[in-house]
Amino acid sequence: MKLVREDIISLEPRKRALFINSLSGFKSANLVGTADTHGRTNLAIVSSVVHLGSDPALLAMIMRPHTVPRGTLENISETGIYTINHVNLDIYQQAHQTSARYPDDISEFNEVGLTEQWEPNFIAPFVKESAIKMGMKFRERHHLKINGTELIIGEIQSVDFPEEYWSQDGFLDLEKSQSVALSSLDTYHQTQKLESLSYAKPNLPLTKLNR
Amino acid sequence: MKLVREDIISLEPRKRALFINSLSGFKSANLVGTADTHGRTNLAIVSSVVHLGSDPALLAMIMRPHTVPRGTLENISETGIYTINHVNLDIYQQAHQTSARYPDDISEFNEVGLTEQWEPNFIAPFVKESAIKMGMKFRERHHLKINGTELIIGEIQSVDFPEEYWSQDGFLDLEKSQSVALSSLDTYHQTQKLESLSYAKPNLPLTKLNR
Repeated sequence: MKLVREDIISLEPRKRALFINSLSGFKSANLVGTADTHGRTNLAIVSSVVHLGSDPALLAMIMRPHTVPRGTLENISETGIYTINHVNLDIYQQAHQTSARYPDDISEFNEVGLTEQWEPNFIAPFVKESAIKMGMKFRERHHLKINGTELIIGEIQSVDFPEEYWSQDGFLDLEKSQSVALSSLDTYHQTQKLESLSYAKPNLPLTKLNR
Repeated sequence: MKLVREDIISLEPRKRALFINSLSGFKSANLVGTADTHGRTNLAIVSSVVHLGSDPALLAMIMRPHTVPRGTLENISETGIYTINHVNLDIYQQAHQTSARYPDDISEFNEVGLTEQWEPNFIAPFVKESAIKMGMKFRERHHLKINGTELIIGEIQSVDFPEEYWSQDGFLDLEKSQSVALSSLDTYHQTQKLESLSYAKPNLPLTKLNR
């Protein structure tokens, strides 16, 4: 079937949100950890983390300032520091629960049953239960006028992960870490590798990589 | 193990690219179809499409102007029109092959064996073999100074999909469409649904949705 712009606009808002959120394809599932200047922590699931570049090593994410997760964006503005932690199979339900609208003075860590992990000289909490954890430093912010969202760009300061997930060539195996994927607003998926393909060149058949 | 900023910088460039590209988590896999003002077509796999908002219905993606897929960005600038097509199980190898650096006057459609689908009054080609196809209109562009990439925001003008993948509540089932997920630069994954979870509220247990 085919829906056009006018059909989309006339959908009931919650139905439209579930539908349009399905259309980008599978999403990453990450937990963003922050603290304010008093050390009060915040934890928010974010499905919009994308790779921006590897030199410098940059990740971007989209935040909606006037909805959840408001505290997270305020803390990043205050301190310039945050963490990004993969959502693994063991913790996807707790991760989803962080999207509830808790009062500002409540830490989602306690409410959902995840554990703060503090590292020396880093003023944002990591998620202990997460297999792949990054310490981030805020670098650039863009206001997206079209709908009032904010693009937040940060540089990776540290990456903590089990060495056995790492291949010689740099590939980190997200199935070994049991990282999950998200679709729409509420559906979590495990993955099953099809194959890793060689670097594509014109007029050369692709080969399957063994790693 | 833990790598810090200086460790990352000192990695060999290809190894660093495979590694940093793993860190955002699973990515969407989409084919972006465009044409120039002479109707010459271009097709490029893009792993950075993200949901930006549902009212208006917006998708964003990140493009590297000085590398692949250069023709795609030029065509979008020229015409303001493009398509986003899900990469399905049946076509992920052809989709990967579009990342090869073909000369400007060569259409990736022919080279990789995918079929152009033209719709009335729309000047960019869809991918016939793709299950979920969107017609897009360019809306806003942001130059990301930090590494010279461009954030391209477009509004969904049309969505074409098999009706049986669509739930009453708006959710579109990306496993029925056999949409694939990507990790790092070269690895394709099928998914297996864990569960759909209810809208999270403080102090209320999550329930599993039946859809």
